[in-house]
Amino acid sequence: MTMEKGISSVEVLPSKSSQVTAVKVVVKEPETKQTQRGKRVGFVLVHAGAGYHSESKAKEYKHVCKRACQKAIEKLQAGALATDAVTAALIELEDSPFTNAGMGSNLNLLGEIECDASIMDGKSLNFGAVGALSGIKNPVSVANRLLCEGQKGKLSAGRIPPCFLVGEGAFRWAVDHGIPACPPGIMATRFSLAAFKRNKRKLELAEKVETDLIQLKKRRQSNEKGSRVMCRMCGRPSKANGGSRGSDQIELYSSENDSGTLDTVGAVVVDQEGNVAAAVSSGGLALKHPGRVGQAALYGCGCWAENTGAHTPYSTAVSTSGCGEHLVRTILARECSCALQTEDAHQALLETMQNKFIGSPFLANEDGVLGGVIVLRSCRCSAEPELSQEKPTLLVEFLWSHTTESMCVGYMSAQDGKAKTHISRLPPGAVAGQSVAIEGGVCRLESPES
Amino acid sequence: MTMEKGISSVEVLPSKSSQVTAVKVVVKEPETKQTQRGKRVGFVLVHAGAGYHSESKAKEYKHVCKRACQKAIEKLQAGALATDAVTAALIELEDSPFTNAGMGSNLNLLGEIECDASIMDGKSLNFGAVGALSGIKNPVSVANRLLCEGQKGKLSAGRIPPCFLVGEGAFRWAVDHGIPACPPGIMATRFSLAAFKRNKRKLELAEKVETDLIQLKKRRQSNEKGSRVMCRMCGRPSKANGGSRGSDQIELYSSENDSGTLDTVGAVVVDQEGNVAAAVSSGGLALKHPGRVGQAALYGCGCWAENTGAHTPYSTAVSTSGCGEHLVRTILARECSCALQTEDAHQALLETMQNKFIGSPFLANEDGVLGGVIVLRSCRCSAEPELSQEKPTLLVEFLWSHTTESMCVGYMSAQDGKAKTHISRLPPGAVAGQSVAIEGGVCRLESPES
Repeated sequence: MTMEKGISSVEVLPSKSSQVTAVKVVVKEPETKQTQRGKRVGFVLVHAGAGYHSESKAKEYKHVCKRACQKAIEKLQAGALATDAVTAALIELEDSPFTNAGMGSNLNLLGEIECDASIMDGKSLNFGAVGALSGIKNPVSVANRLLCEGQKGKLSAGRIPPCFLVGEGAFRWAVDHGIPACPPGIMATRFSLAAFKRNKRKLELAEKVETDLIQLKKRRQSNEKGSRVMCRMCGRPSKANGGSRGSDQIELYSSENDSGTLDTVGAVVVDQEGNVAAAVSSGGLALKHPGRVGQAALYGCGCWAENTGAHTPYSTAVSTSGCGEHLVRTILARECSCALQTEDAHQALLETMQNKFIGSPFLANEDGVLGGVIVLRSCRCSAEPELSQEKPTLLVEFLWSHTTESMCVGYMSAQDGKAKTHISRLPPGAVAGQSVAIEGGVCRLESPES
Repeated sequence: MTMEKGISSVEVLPSKSSQVTAVKVVVKEPETKQTQRGKRVGFVLVHAGAGYHSESKAKEYKHVCKRACQKAIEKLQAGALATDAVTAALIELEDSPFTNAGMGSNLNLLGEIECDASIMDGKSLNFGAVGALSGIKNPVSVANRLLCEGQKGKLSAGRIPPCFLVGEGAFRWAVDHGIPACPPGIMATRFSLAAFKRNKRKLELAEKVETDLIQLKKRRQSNEKGSRVMCRMCGRPSKANGGSRGSDQIELYSSENDSGTLDTVGAVVVDQEGNVAAAVSSGGLALKHPGRVGQAALYGCGCWAENTGAHTPYSTAVSTSGCGEHLVRTILARECSCALQTEDAHQALLETMQNKFIGSPFLANEDGVLGGVIVLRSCRCSAEPELSQEKPTLLVEFLWSHTTESMCVGYMSAQDGKAKTHISRLPPGAVAGQSVAIEGGVCRLESPES
């Protein structure tokens, strides 16, 4: 069984609320092929960040997505559950020097790497997360271990096992649980160190401009005091113009600066039993304050996974990427998961990105709202409902959507020979932070277990 | 204008879902008195944790709630906004050696104090939080400062200001922003140190019991191997019984142990302009792992505040307390805020505590679900709608609800001479973790600004 992606129509949906331009790409349902009985099934969708992916490095981004998909599928084919498969995908994404997660993460103000990561299991609804973690090569493996340990029940003396650990405490816990420490020098790459130096220079320049502005303002005030300049309107002494907090001319997070705009990586998986899992990992914003924790560590914000239940007709898994503060304030992963319980997944996700993200009252003061999501939802159904003899299949709908200039994704089913990858970009003329791109596909998996 | 609390009826509502016993206490609407023109108005509701409050210390708990209310009201009377008033209340709660927040917080496994705190402003919808913070007397003041700094817009070079800082980075940020460091020895009290020693002994005993059990199991396995004991059913070697992870007999968080069961403190405020704010602060679970962050630091989980808007007819503010992991998984503060947008606040909160907390699929594997909330919601309305000349008033509904054995609350309006305090307890026969207590009142404030 393979997936065939065929773009059959492109619709531009004007939005009433803002300058939103949503591109709806309808992907054909795959044609069903004969599958070998007993073969493991499952599906993975990964992303290497919503941000700006330069054409020059497109090949590397796609390559790491491909490898991450393959790692997850290898796990699924070996009979692993969704959480192990999603962790395998994340480890591959973290290990790439091109992504802002694990190895090669953005450096903070002090030149250190501090990572956030989390994982959620749709079956147990358990969650594990780490924030501002240094000295561990794969933060997602600590998050996954927290999830696993949490599932074992209470600790001695009835203590509740932690699901979220940060900083030095998270590091100690990881090492105590057999996860090897990684010397700090190893995680920074030539690429991340160069970006750090470039960003530091920009920051120093911006701060110099700011200091000059303050001094200019002081001199003006002093002159005005000396010459008793009075306001012609109210007769009171004139006020100097309020200087901006920083220099707006020098921006760290501009499209020209790859390292500043790429963020979180993540994956969503459905396994042969229909369990879903989601994970996310991030090095955070370039030159962030030490100790800053972003959405990748936060429950409901970085990832969400929920198996079908009494009130949830679909199993859903979501992983987010982009500006951490925007994704946190909108609790975007959980918001998308809730929306995906309605019939039309594509429309539900588009409306969520338009109304609950770009149009969110929680982000009303932001110039642009930057983020992206990958989602999957699945349900068991008969491929041909009219044929009662038909084996039930797992229908997997998968989508990605972003308000950033681009988002790199990859996807693969357990029956595919190799992963498909794609760099999704906003349509020409669309404004990053104000427009939504949305694409996706459908995959029907015949479950040997069902 | 004063509030008069009169319990007019007590109803026991049986629940279909579980062994929930909800006590509905209807509180009379207060009688309106003449207010002085130009006097500042506002209302505060605080709590000193949902957990177990012994009768012997009831006086102290009530006293600190009273003082916290007074501090908030003093701020409101001086014209402060809701966020400053709620911070003032929290500082008072943190400074008490009887609460598990700030001074006198529970000690972690290493005997250190690490605090979580957060604040939300209903007007700007901004949020500030700290997690696993050591060395600062009032963690809420750092959370409030993060909120304030965040409202000033971007940092130099377009950097996004952090809203959530943890550990050492949070400490450095606080000190850099003029918040004084507090020597670690000062924050631990005689009471918290005694509880730490008691808990450590319990833990050592529990771990000894566990080790003995493992050794017993090994000896049994060895004996079985030697004597080749086979299962009579399947003919395979018999398995030893799986030992429990800890000893269930020795529990840290039992009602007899005050220090282990009391948790988070918090407050909700509405100011004279109708703005709401909420805050929460916690020392976390006794003997928690270093670096563990609980709900008090997490967006949507510890507190929530949202002014009335296009889609929200009411302004709402919520602060939670209890078992951090339970409050996180249910994102309880935000859940309550959403529910409070329906007409009957009392019913909405009761249903949320029953269906979205005790009955939550996210906590299906828990023996008992422990937590409490204080909520307020307000809306501008005319006291006597038929009289169009009537000045619009601020109608404030306030409620507290808990599944823990008890919850200590205090409340006060800017026109009251002193605060009212109350230790709410589950009704006799109700089981903590499975039953809901709910109480509250209504207060009508005539706003001089309206």
